Amino acid sequence: MSNDKDSMNMSDLSTALNEEDRAGLVNALKNKLQNLAGQHSDVLENLTPPVRKRVEFLREIQNQYDEMEAKFFEERAALEAKYQKLYQPLYTKRYEIVNGVVEVEGAAEEVKSEQGEDKSAEEKGVPDFWLIALKNNEITAEEITERDEGALKYLKDIKWSRVEEPKGFKLEFFFDQNPYFKNTVLTKTYHMIDEDEPILEKALGTEIEWYPGKCLTQKILKKKPKKGSKNTKPITKTEDCESFFNFFSPPQVPDDDEDLDDDMADELQGQMEHDYDIGSTIKEKIISHAVSWFTGEAVEADDLDIEDDDDEIDEDDDEEDEEDDEDDEEEDDEDDDEEEEADQGKKSKKKAGRSQLAEGQAGERPPECKQQ
Amino acid sequence: MSNDKDSMNMSDLSTALNEEDRAGLVNALKNKLQNLAGQHSDVLENLTPPVRKRVEFLREIQNQYDEMEAKFFEERAALEAKYQKLYQPLYTKRYEIVNGVVEVEGAAEEVKSEQGEDKSAEEKGVPDFWLIALKNNEITAEEITERDEGALKYLKDIKWSRVEEPKGFKLEFFFDQNPYFKNTVLTKTYHMIDEDEPILEKALGTEIEWYPGKCLTQKILKKKPKKGSKNTKPITKTEDCESFFNFFSPPQVPDDDEDLDDDMADELQGQMEHDYDIGSTIKEKIISHAVSWFTGEAVEADDLDIEDDDDEIDEDDDEEDEEDDEDDEEEDDEDDDEEEEADQGKKSKKKAGRSQLAEGQAGERPPECKQQ
Repeated sequence: MSNDKDSMNMSDLSTALNEEDRAGLVNALKNKLQNLAGQHSDVLENLTPPVRKRVEFLREIQNQYDEMEAKFFEERAALEAKYQKLYQPLYTKRYEIVNGVVEVEGAAEEVKSEQGEDKSAEEKGVPDFWLIALKNNEITAEEITERDEGALKYLKDIKWSRVEEPKGFKLEFFFDQNPYFKNTVLTKTYHMIDEDEPILEKALGTEIEWYPGKCLTQKILKKKPKKGSKNTKPITKTEDCESFFNFFSPPQVPDDDEDLDDDMADELQGQMEHDYDIGSTIKEKIISHAVSWFTGEAVEADDLDIEDDDDEIDEDDDEEDEEDDEDDEEEDDEDDDEEEEADQGKKSKKKAGRSQLAEGQAGERPPECKQQ
Repeated sequence: MSNDKDSMNMSDLSTALNEEDRAGLVNALKNKLQNLAGQHSDVLENLTPPVRKRVEFLREIQNQYDEMEAKFFEERAALEAKYQKLYQPLYTKRYEIVNGVVEVEGAAEEVKSEQGEDKSAEEKGVPDFWLIALKNNEITAEEITERDEGALKYLKDIKWSRVEEPKGFKLEFFFDQNPYFKNTVLTKTYHMIDEDEPILEKALGTEIEWYPGKCLTQKILKKKPKKGSKNTKPITKTEDCESFFNFFSPPQVPDDDEDLDDDMADELQGQMEHDYDIGSTIKEKIISHAVSWFTGEAVEADDLDIEDDDDEIDEDDDEEDEEDDEDDEEEDDEDDDEEEEADQGKKSKKKAGRSQLAEGQAGERPPECKQQ
């Protein structure tokens, strides 16, 4: 594995405000924050009367901003909903082809010419479509064991939808009748606390109704009884094991926070982050670009993006000198000669084959759990 | 400090696709991915002719999707730009009041009645506005040392703007003439590699032209010469130290990745994440809601969101049973009895005063650097 780390995978940052795909970070500073909040009321009271008047006026301006921003959130949600609707017929077509509900032009002829040669005549749709797509994304691939593959072959579709109250989203995994479990839909729901400052409330998964002896999230260990023991039957012991299907039993926060010590809290945090990574990868990447994940093109695209960029950026170094046309008049005169930048990182991007640096949540707390 | 961890601060997830505020995560798996990509071409070649035909058709559908998605990105960017423009007059007004360029109604009278009593008559605008705002956000507060405060009192405004080529954003810190450094604008620019899969290329900062002896990012240590030494002058030694102004000297990736061992790479990754957290906090939170950060209301709002939600969600538990109206016809019949969810996390949210769990980047790699 390479250690190259020239870049960080992170926000495109093309808008000012957004509540999406923000992964929030630990706030173990709550008490401190409450204290700060208290202090700040004092700060306001201690202002001299003219300054307080000005701050009151500023608060009105802030209120106007907040109203505008609320409208922005509304309009953006409407835009997103519009496109989700536009995408639906394409998702339906994909479903029908993948599962052999409809046949594409030309494929029937191919089936005929192949008949007798091999098993392809019997193949309906695109076998293992979702299994292969999930195995080609590194986040989801890590979750899939060899044992899981048998069950994931029966996966017919994955969909996501918004959940409004409480805010969040739901993933639905549609399965064909299969020898592993009774359910035909497995769901995973993420409930968020707030829109602007999105906070995960909890993650919920469908309880899987495994057929006897078919549970993929547990292993049965058989032990021979000790010699001389009266009991001659083998002792069986079940043990939790790795499986993609653990995704439907997300980590649970204990009722009483005091049951958690720092290490347990860190571990739980890590588990919840991991669980959310999988869910959001499926929602953001797999569902929308499943065909490209199936073919592997989505993997290649990730690579190409990086290499294209290496060439591109070298030509753009002088872009930094562009004027920011949003500047206030008072400040325009300050804006010319201050753009010398300590640009030591430039060369490293030319190196091909490097990997991307991790990045904590944009605008949120850093990924470490801050305990004090 | 509390260890309560009932919730994770993360994406609101209200849209399907977004490139914003995603903090990407480590991809040290690049070689593996390239191998996978290679394997996948083989997968395609090994498909039987009818299946290959179907996959070709699916790729056309995916292309249609990608075109729609590109339009969505365009429309969303336009919407965001529209609102950024709408916000500008409010930002300008704020600037003028904060810096005493204009006086608000009523404040002049207050100044008169105060005259002679204390120094308030001389106060222009809202003193220390940005310093206090930055100190009330826990991400930025952590960066500010006591020494920094003297210089940050001269901060007149902070603005952000998009950078188009390469994609990213620029923060501009406008300073009044001050005894610390010559610059009147300090900038920090984040360059991203790609829009859909946003990856940080590099971060650049203005080189600060400190006045002699005024550098806040270094400390001068004076040592007495050793007894008996011929040199009787004290030895001075400069040492880097903590300072908000280190934000303008972001971590640099070395030219040659091979110079980095795993531990160094992890450390660098952590530094880059931390640096990006500060930048995106300023862009996403501080600039847009500076007044609320100044007054402390933004801190309180964070708390209130959580507590409000505790009450709210308990009433919404049955929302899970809503039908997803985007389901394909083929699947609707499967969609009724599968919503039993393992809902053990529910109780914990009732506890007040708990804090938020950290969350890695939605849809991206988990925050740890995966080295293999």
